[in-house]
Amino acid sequence: MLDGLIVSIDAMGGDDAPEIVIEGIEYFLKHEGKGRRARFLLHGDQPRLDKLLKKNPLTRERSEVCHSPTEIAMDEKPSQALRKGKGTSMWNAILAVKEGRANTVLSAGNTGALMAMSMLQLRRMHGIQRPALAANWPRPEGISVVLDVGANVEATASQLAEFAVLGDAFYRALFKKEHPSIGLLNVGTEDQKGHAVIKAAHERLAESDIGLNYKGYVEGNDISFGNTDVVVTDGFTGNVALKTAEGTAKLIGKFFNEALQGNPWSKFTTMLNSVALIKLKKRIDPRGVNGGVFLGLNGIVIKSHGGTDKVGYSNALNVAIGLAGSNFLEEIEREVERLHDEDDNIGFIE
Amino acid sequence: MLDGLIVSIDAMGGDDAPEIVIEGIEYFLKHEGKGRRARFLLHGDQPRLDKLLKKNPLTRERSEVCHSPTEIAMDEKPSQALRKGKGTSMWNAILAVKEGRANTVLSAGNTGALMAMSMLQLRRMHGIQRPALAANWPRPEGISVVLDVGANVEATASQLAEFAVLGDAFYRALFKKEHPSIGLLNVGTEDQKGHAVIKAAHERLAESDIGLNYKGYVEGNDISFGNTDVVVTDGFTGNVALKTAEGTAKLIGKFFNEALQGNPWSKFTTMLNSVALIKLKKRIDPRGVNGGVFLGLNGIVIKSHGGTDKVGYSNALNVAIGLAGSNFLEEIEREVERLHDEDDNIGFIE
Repeated sequence: MLDGLIVSIDAMGGDDAPEIVIEGIEYFLKHEGKGRRARFLLHGDQPRLDKLLKKNPLTRERSEVCHSPTEIAMDEKPSQALRKGKGTSMWNAILAVKEGRANTVLSAGNTGALMAMSMLQLRRMHGIQRPALAANWPRPEGISVVLDVGANVEATASQLAEFAVLGDAFYRALFKKEHPSIGLLNVGTEDQKGHAVIKAAHERLAESDIGLNYKGYVEGNDISFGNTDVVVTDGFTGNVALKTAEGTAKLIGKFFNEALQGNPWSKFTTMLNSVALIKLKKRIDPRGVNGGVFLGLNGIVIKSHGGTDKVGYSNALNVAIGLAGSNFLEEIEREVERLHDEDDNIGFIE
Repeated sequence: MLDGLIVSIDAMGGDDAPEIVIEGIEYFLKHEGKGRRARFLLHGDQPRLDKLLKKNPLTRERSEVCHSPTEIAMDEKPSQALRKGKGTSMWNAILAVKEGRANTVLSAGNTGALMAMSMLQLRRMHGIQRPALAANWPRPEGISVVLDVGANVEATASQLAEFAVLGDAFYRALFKKEHPSIGLLNVGTEDQKGHAVIKAAHERLAESDIGLNYKGYVEGNDISFGNTDVVVTDGFTGNVALKTAEGTAKLIGKFFNEALQGNPWSKFTTMLNSVALIKLKKRIDPRGVNGGVFLGLNGIVIKSHGGTDKVGYSNALNVAIGLAGSNFLEEIEREVERLHDEDDNIGFIE
């Protein structure tokens, strides 16, 4: 066997799995992953995977197929998925992390099922009340991380404070920035804005002394156009914000295409202008920030968009390997302990 | 005096008031408002307004200046604004509607202050628990309306059901569509998704028989890229969604400009391509949908963006006059009564 980090892959998860998954790994090994010594455990239908590996030699060289007879459908409810559970490619992919046979797990499958199975197998980290789903978000200079974008539909003030710790450790691990700035998503930046839960979380974070670079409230427009690294919110608001941004980008993309294809003259000049357009497309390409991460579990679980292509899948792999090579699980554990020690000292109960 | 609808204008509200306000009215009268018989009560500093009117003859012809010695600052808290209250241009502009001297009021001033003063003077409509702020939103075909985008930070199921009625009447009045489709914003479209309040509102709307065209849950991406006319949500989520969309549009705009200005060659072809680009800019122009509306009060209160220009202000005027010429206040009153009669019949208490 080769050495290096081991990524456990749910090869059957995703709209176009397992084809996109294997092509995504191959793409990764040709580009971002060139020279990196990652290896892959491919969980899924052995005959189909073997056939695909013949066409993807770099992947074949660094992979081991682990046959899983069944799989979770994209539209299955988490409760159904859990009943099906064992023997599915998703279950087995997570199990490999639980049993220490892999450093991280990546799936482009059903989000709710991945969440439920990961919770059940990997369990919450000590001191974490609720895990959170974190998403990367492009902004003019760099990337911001928003959490929770949908692991839970509600959050208490104490849980929001934990999300700040999770986001902080995540940002440091992935972007190697020492003191990422942290904001709390609200409807305004003045102290009196927002509802009771937000205000309580704000007060808690503002008086914390555990080393978080907390900057106070931020608003929706700050996610894409601000300078805050980590944006903390509940899973309902975060999910709506994420999908609203996707819808807006899609709408503008549509208008853009229509405008540029509107008449023969603009068609012609668009062709001439293709260098600039390709550059633009690359910058607003959602595949570039593909890879949500479940934070707060005893293990690193990465979720790729179900409808992604090989480039997007490769980006999610990059996130997975970046995190697996860091010590951010230990950092989270340490920071959360400090947060809760502080809770005890200041008498913060919720 | 001329006949026609009368718009009461807070001429001192807005980042560049009163200049933009007067220029906005002039622009309106030259374009959209050409041939319409609207008149204006201009509340604000008489000497400044008189001076501006000299340069804007169409506006002068159709306006009456009502001197207001003071004004509300853009960053004043609603509580401060209320204390200052009487005598400000904003207060007097609303008062004209209350006293029946105008059909609608338009302000580009402080949103919180406008809301608080409107509530105090115009009062909630009978049967409405909380007013809502509605925003127009572009989508591929037409416009969707989202409410609440920030009048309240929380909403009960019963209030969300009222928002559906408000949005329905608003959409019909503004866009002349008989049965606008209505969706409830959630983190997924399956029945089991969301928190308790959303589920209760969903059940209430789904079993209603008062004639709403309720379609069930929608997600964030459906606001910009779906086909639902009215999207109902609480003011916290709606506000974050609105501002997130603005931030996303701004980010893409920035990337777009940078990409097209990146090298001399693309600069040149961009010049050639300007027809298409102007067309695009017009379609994603936020000024085209300027004009939030406070729904649920005994009067029509329109809020323009504080930082808008004359074109945006003119669009807000268009919304104000469109609504003032409809009977939507009566329709809301009738529909809300039917909703609450139904509440009683089915024993919906909250």
